This record gives sequence, structure tokens and C-alpha cells, in this order.
Amino acid sequence: MAILTPVARADDPRLDDYRDLTTADRRPDRPGGRGLVIAEGVVVVRRLLDSPYPIRSLLGVPRRLDELSGDLERVDVPAYATDADVMAEAVGFHLNRGVLAVADRADVPDPAQLAARARVLAVCEGVGDHENLGSLFRNAAALGVDGILLGPYCSDPLYRRSVRVSMGHVLRVPFAPLPGPWPASLSLLRDAGLTVAALTPDPGAVPLARAGLSGRRTALLLGAEGPGLTDEALAAADVRVRIPMSTGVDSLNVATAAAVAFHAITGDD
Amino acid sequence: MAILTPVARADDPRLDDYRDLTTADRRPDRPGGRGLVIAEGVVVVRRLLDSPYPIRSLLGVPRRLDELSGDLERVDVPAYATDADVMAEAVGFHLNRGVLAVADRADVPDPAQLAARARVLAVCEGVGDHENLGSLFRNAAALGVDGILLGPYCSDPLYRRSVRVSMGHVLRVPFAPLPGPWPASLSLLRDAGLTVAALTPDPGAVPLARAGLSGRRTALLLGAEGPGLTDEALAAADVRVRIPMSTGVDSLNVATAAAVAFHAITGDD
Repeated sequence: MAILTPVARADDPRLDDYRDLTTADRRPDRPGGRGLVIAEGVVVVRRLLDSPYPIRSLLGVPRRLDELSGDLERVDVPAYATDADVMAEAVGFHLNRGVLAVADRADVPDPAQLAARARVLAVCEGVGDHENLGSLFRNAAALGVDGILLGPYCSDPLYRRSVRVSMGHVLRVPFAPLPGPWPASLSLLRDAGLTVAALTPDPGAVPLARAGLSGRRTALLLGAEGPGLTDEALAAADVRVRIPMSTGVDSLNVATAAAVAFHAITGDD
Repeated sequence: MAILTPVARADDPRLDDYRDLTTADRRPDRPGGRGLVIAEGVVVVRRLLDSPYPIRSLLGVPRRLDELSGDLERVDVPAYATDADVMAEAVGFHLNRGVLAVADRADVPDPAQLAARARVLAVCEGVGDHENLGSLFRNAAALGVDGILLGPYCSDPLYRRSVRVSMGHVLRVPFAPLPGPWPASLSLLRDAGLTVAALTPDPGAVPLARAGLSGRRTALLLGAEGPGLTDEALAAADVRVRIPMSTGVDSLNVATAAAVAFHAITGDD
């Protein structure tokens, strides 16, 4: 059970994990130079408490910690209670969500094992925008995607902003970097029996609704908004699929396009 | 052809349309108390120039006005050229997009005419968040939706933030308030031969992929993220459809859910 511990001063060293929160997810002193996992707000803190990440502590105003009292029974960490002003002073800005939790990073799952048991995976190339990546995880969680593999030039899903935009679903959807030279590394997915489908705006691709992916074990390859997938990644796919788009319209946001495709694959399961 | 006019001072009265830009889209002195239509950045300004909204003027740094020179040949309005500092002083904050255009509002289309010729319409209830509404227009434009009707408690698509988030597509996708008492007013759509399909997370609704909307003239009823459609709106629909979701996951963002549904309706056209 979490130990409720009142803290009166922002300079209390027990709050060091929360100091300078804007960069606490990128701390060079931490293992691998990747920082703490930070959850903000009752919903996301709850998801962190339910996740495999080892919780270090919580910090919140009494009202928010009280909302979490049921969840706090299951963890043995300090829950620092203070007021909104002390919190703001410690973290460096005013937080309107009233509660934070920090955790250590954890080992990532084995991509081959993830692929072996997956019905649908997403594989990202160059999704470097934290908010897009967070939204993508949220949509993946909602639409039954079993995991996300990260190819080159993707941002870190555990950055604070991705955690927040994903509404904590980066803490639930398994993810791992895809090892080996890209895009030859995609053979790991094919070896696991998945069809590798590249989503592209290319008019020569097969319309998603006619690609026959519904019900088929699929790894959906997603590129960055704007440049899209590289030619190499496109060439490495088993099939190229597109969302039919009106002419003269910018492509959809990558997380939105992914949601459309996830539904086309899983919506009839 | 637009008249390129150098302006040296931020207090020049010719820049009055751009003053206090954060509220220029809500000016009580303007017709109906609704303010100017404001476009920011080359892409969105271009869409405003292509739209039915009567352009009043442009304001930009020379480099951005130069990018628009081809478009400016088609309009007879002043294009005020100045530097970034004068622009920032006039509008009240630093704009990194370097060009603005303002237009007057225009008459909205007749909803019955819009419905008569539409393959797919969206009908919103309580979509009060400007960014969600803007994203919804962007997704509607991309996925072949012919128009958007606004039921009660929707925000104004022409607010500056909606215009920006929509990437200017609020200026291209026809929209109008749906007149008459809600939701009885939906009969206008049924009278035009459209099937009224309500999108809801209700587990009792028909999965979208099995609702048979593909190829059918459809009005898709969308509610706010969070509360969703009211019981009255749900009861007024011909069919209730849902996107199958993993348990324990928050519903999708309304614009994302709309995109998934738009594709399910139009993706095989």
C-alpha cells in the first residue's frame, strides 16, 4: 500500500524526480540516457499503476490522490501529498491535472514474440512527432492492435508528451524497436506469418477496402505525415494499400490514417 | 490583380482588420456578431483565395507574398507587405507563418439543397471544441464528404483556430446550421433520401463494417467526444452504428472516429 507522505516544501529532495518536469523524460544521468516515465492526471496515472513500469512515487494534491486511493492500495511506493503551489514550484509550471506519477523504464518485449502472437501490428518509419505517435498509440489501443514496432527515425513513445496525448495507452500497447538493418528487418514479420501492408497515398496502391486485409494477420507499415514511407520501405512490403482521397486535399494525419486502416483490418473481427 | 502595398508602421489604420487577432474572429461590431474569416500561412491563405468568401486584404512578409504571387493575380484587394516585427506588433503576437488574409463571411448554403445532391453528409451535435471541429472538416474533405450540417451546441467552423486546424478545409467543405427543432429537423435528410446513421460507442449498435452503409447515401450523425450523442438524437436515427473498440479504452477522438466512419461509407466508391 502506498505511503501517503505530506511534503511542505518544493525544494524537498524527495521531489527530485519531479523537478524540471519538461525535461525529466530525457535525463542523461538515467540508464540509456532515457529518462523517467511520467504520467499526468488521474486517468493516465492509473494506467501507469496498471502497467509493467516500476513505479517510483506519486505526487499530487490530496483530492486527486484520494481519487486514486483504490489504486494506491496495490503499490508500495510513497505518495507525496502537497498543494498546487508547491507542486507548481517543484515541477516548474502550473499543472492543472493535480497528480503525477513517475516510473522507471522497463525492458521492451521481444519483437519476434510480439509478431508470433499478433493478429495486427503497426510498424512505424520516421514517425518523429511526439503527438502523432501518442495519438497513434491511442488509436491502436482502441482498435485492437496488438503492438507497435519502431523502425528508424521514430520518436520515443515514453516521452511525457506522447504519454499524455496517448491518454496513457503507450503504457498498455506493447512496443519495441525493430532490430536489424531497415527495411530488411521486416522479414521478421513475414517469418511470423504476417502480411506486410504499406499504407501510402500513392494512387497506384490498392484501395484499402479492396485489399482483403480484413481477417488477415497484418503488419501495417506507416510513414511520417508529409514525406510518407521511404521507397525502400514501400518496396519491402507485400502489398501497398491506400485510403481513397479527394483530389487536392492534404493527406490525413498519420494517426488518423492509421485508425482508418486499423478499422479496415480489425473492424469485422 | 492584388495591389502590393508596403506598410511601415503597426499602427497604420489599414491594418485594423488584423489588430488583436486572437479575437478578430469574434467581433461584435461585425454582421451577426461573427467576425472576420482569417487564414494563416501560405496553404490556408491560398484556400481562402479559392473560396467563396469575399477577400478584404492580405498582410505578409515579402517572401510569403511572393510565394502567393500567382494566386494574387486573381484578386483585386490590397496585399500589405511589411516585416515580421511590424506584423507581430499589429496582430499582438509573433506569427511564424508570415502571411495572413482576411475575408468577410458569406451566406451559408441551403441545407435542403446540400442534402438533395449529397452522397455523404456529416451532421454534428454538440461538437463544441474548435480543434475537433477543424480536424473533422479536414477529414471530411479528404474522405469525400459533401457537406457538414451543424445541429445544436456546435462551435463556429470559421473561428480562426478551426480554420487553421482544418488546414483551410472549413473554407472548402460546404456547411450550414440545420434549421428547426432538434432532432426533428433530421427529417430534412430523410426526405432527401439519405439514411441517417448515428455513430455511438453503444455496444448494442451495429458494427460499422456490417451496417451496409458502403455505397448508400448516408448522413452520419456525430456527437461530442465524451458525452456522445443525446438520447433524442440517437432515437431519431435510422440506424445506430459503432466502431468495435477494445474494452477499457477511451473512445476515439470525434474527428478520428468520423474519419473511420467516412471511410467505411465512401472507401469503396
